[in-house]
Amino acid sequence: MAVSTDQRLRITYLVRCSGDENPEEKVGDIAYEQTVELPRGCAPAPIEERYPGRVEALDEEPDGRYRARISYDVAVLDHGLPQLLNVVFGNISMQTGIQVVHVEWPLQHMPGAPGPAFGVEGIRRIAQAPEGRPLICAALKPMGLTPRELADRCHALAAGGADVIKDDHGLCNQAPSPLADRVGVCQEAVARANAETGHHCAYFPNVTGRFGEIPSYVELVQKAGCQGVLVCPMIVGIDVMVWLAETSGLAVLAHPALTGMFFAPEHGILPEIFYGQLLRLAGADGVIYTNAGGRFPFSEETCVGINERLLEPLGDRRPAFPVPGGGINVARVTHWLERYGPDTMFLIGGSFYMQPDLRGGVAALRERIDRYVSEREAASES
Amino acid sequence: MAVSTDQRLRITYLVRCSGDENPEEKVGDIAYEQTVELPRGCAPAPIEERYPGRVEALDEEPDGRYRARISYDVAVLDHGLPQLLNVVFGNISMQTGIQVVHVEWPLQHMPGAPGPAFGVEGIRRIAQAPEGRPLICAALKPMGLTPRELADRCHALAAGGADVIKDDHGLCNQAPSPLADRVGVCQEAVARANAETGHHCAYFPNVTGRFGEIPSYVELVQKAGCQGVLVCPMIVGIDVMVWLAETSGLAVLAHPALTGMFFAPEHGILPEIFYGQLLRLAGADGVIYTNAGGRFPFSEETCVGINERLLEPLGDRRPAFPVPGGGINVARVTHWLERYGPDTMFLIGGSFYMQPDLRGGVAALRERIDRYVSEREAASES
Repeated sequence: MAVSTDQRLRITYLVRCSGDENPEEKVGDIAYEQTVELPRGCAPAPIEERYPGRVEALDEEPDGRYRARISYDVAVLDHGLPQLLNVVFGNISMQTGIQVVHVEWPLQHMPGAPGPAFGVEGIRRIAQAPEGRPLICAALKPMGLTPRELADRCHALAAGGADVIKDDHGLCNQAPSPLADRVGVCQEAVARANAETGHHCAYFPNVTGRFGEIPSYVELVQKAGCQGVLVCPMIVGIDVMVWLAETSGLAVLAHPALTGMFFAPEHGILPEIFYGQLLRLAGADGVIYTNAGGRFPFSEETCVGINERLLEPLGDRRPAFPVPGGGINVARVTHWLERYGPDTMFLIGGSFYMQPDLRGGVAALRERIDRYVSEREAASES
Repeated sequence: MAVSTDQRLRITYLVRCSGDENPEEKVGDIAYEQTVELPRGCAPAPIEERYPGRVEALDEEPDGRYRARISYDVAVLDHGLPQLLNVVFGNISMQTGIQVVHVEWPLQHMPGAPGPAFGVEGIRRIAQAPEGRPLICAALKPMGLTPRELADRCHALAAGGADVIKDDHGLCNQAPSPLADRVGVCQEAVARANAETGHHCAYFPNVTGRFGEIPSYVELVQKAGCQGVLVCPMIVGIDVMVWLAETSGLAVLAHPALTGMFFAPEHGILPEIFYGQLLRLAGADGVIYTNAGGRFPFSEETCVGINERLLEPLGDRRPAFPVPGGGINVARVTHWLERYGPDTMFLIGGSFYMQPDLRGGVAALRERIDRYVSEREAASES
């Protein structure tokens, strides 16, 4: 269960005790470390009673780790996601052998974690993609090109049949093509391709940048007529997504730069929880993660788990699109379709650019996906 | 050398190759992954020439890892720290066995990494602490107290001789004591204690919070007459510190919540670089880290390394105060003074609150530090 029925924040950790560490003590310390941050018994009685976490269960696992469940009174939270993230993993990040493997969220006490403003349905509306059709997201790259060159690539990707084109996350304000110079021409190129083909591709520029400048980036994007943005939540702070979801009227695609640090073997936050729940709660309409079979180490099982968390019911928070990137091409896409189902947005970068004909590369993938969908529909009708 | 003389960003990594990974390939991939993010040869020639990193050296180490030096043209950066952080560790965070162990910074091309606005000298000016005297920073806690109760604790800590009182990082906008309610009364209590004792203690409230609200928090702090703030850069985004340093007129203390994820055994960024260089460049006037001998796992050697990086020359960027927290009390403080020297701000939380008399606890530590300093001065004069 992902929602806390008694409105306590309930976190399950797998804890490795090394050397002279004692499991009861290590787990009990977590409950204090993440809240009052004092040795036991140092806080006034009414605080001691309510604010430290409560250890509800502690059992040894076959691998020698301890499964500990701690619940926290929502009084430790405020109205924002930053303090929530802090309670989930702030100070214990600096210890070792503590992995967050399950969370029950006290959703009614999490006004700062509103979930997607668009979600799966909203993104389908933008792309005019009916239920049952998986989406294609193309990465616009590389850095170093001029706005005109990038716009030409946008045109080709949109004309080929991409549903969403997102800036490469490393495409920022480098001299050849600052956001202010590229956003208008790229959006115009996508609109032109749409007019030519009848598609409804959307361009999502990258608004990852300096704290004081993000609002002006969002204005540029809105003025250019784009319908969404890309952002790297761990580079700019996770709450930027909440702010975007609540105020911008734009769809939000979360990029995983810097998030890999959470996924050490026995320390951190499970990818299923980080991508599948935290980023969704923070307002991502689509969550990019590194797909199995690409150049990053997630297993298919992990990816399926992320997808499930993004799409499953979670109180009144909307589902968000899983956006696996890496290892996806015409030859392999039906494998991923079988595994992940139609509510998937496939992110493709390199494999398009390895081909001489960018438009043709997208079109071939789109054709393969559409054929798969019609075959499935035909099969289910017969 | 911490400054790049040829104005390229030069990063040394220790790389572990596992399974069928080939060191030349894995290291070459980093150079592309962190820049154009395309397979080799897919970018137009002028881009391919300039934008991917250049592998300058690759040697096997005694532990079987490979020491790789890659340099990056500053063209991959823009004017902000977010993209710099992205190049240093963004996408490779999601791989395994890659540790950043040394960086040469192209300071002239890093306008978005201005370093501290106050630095060691500025903090000493605020606290009126002459050179040679180590400082005491006391943590104000716990969450759950009312503003009046917190203010009473501020008074005791200030009267006892703390130089800086910082909000606990978990003290945010919880119902009993939102920032707007506590900042004025706490600042007033500190000012009153200063008037009584002749000390110059400063109160640094915690402005970690929601993206859209941070500017209003800073205004509250300025209006209350405080001279600094506490912030958690990895919770709110590292560039918030740059913004604070450049625009607020307030000193900035960086709290390490969530930073521990960077310090996996063979993957991440060395603490010496993360705390000692990145946070300093981002504008922290003081950098809190988890001291050796406390409840976190850094060695003394690591702590000394962090201190050295914070204090050593780094172009025109000011030095920042090392602020070790944990394992510091009256009995142990001279040990740390011997190890760390006088340009240290000792952060004390729990060990003050374990004593019945808060003011007396601070006073005893202050007395021990002052005695140590006078004995050293006397010894060096004789």
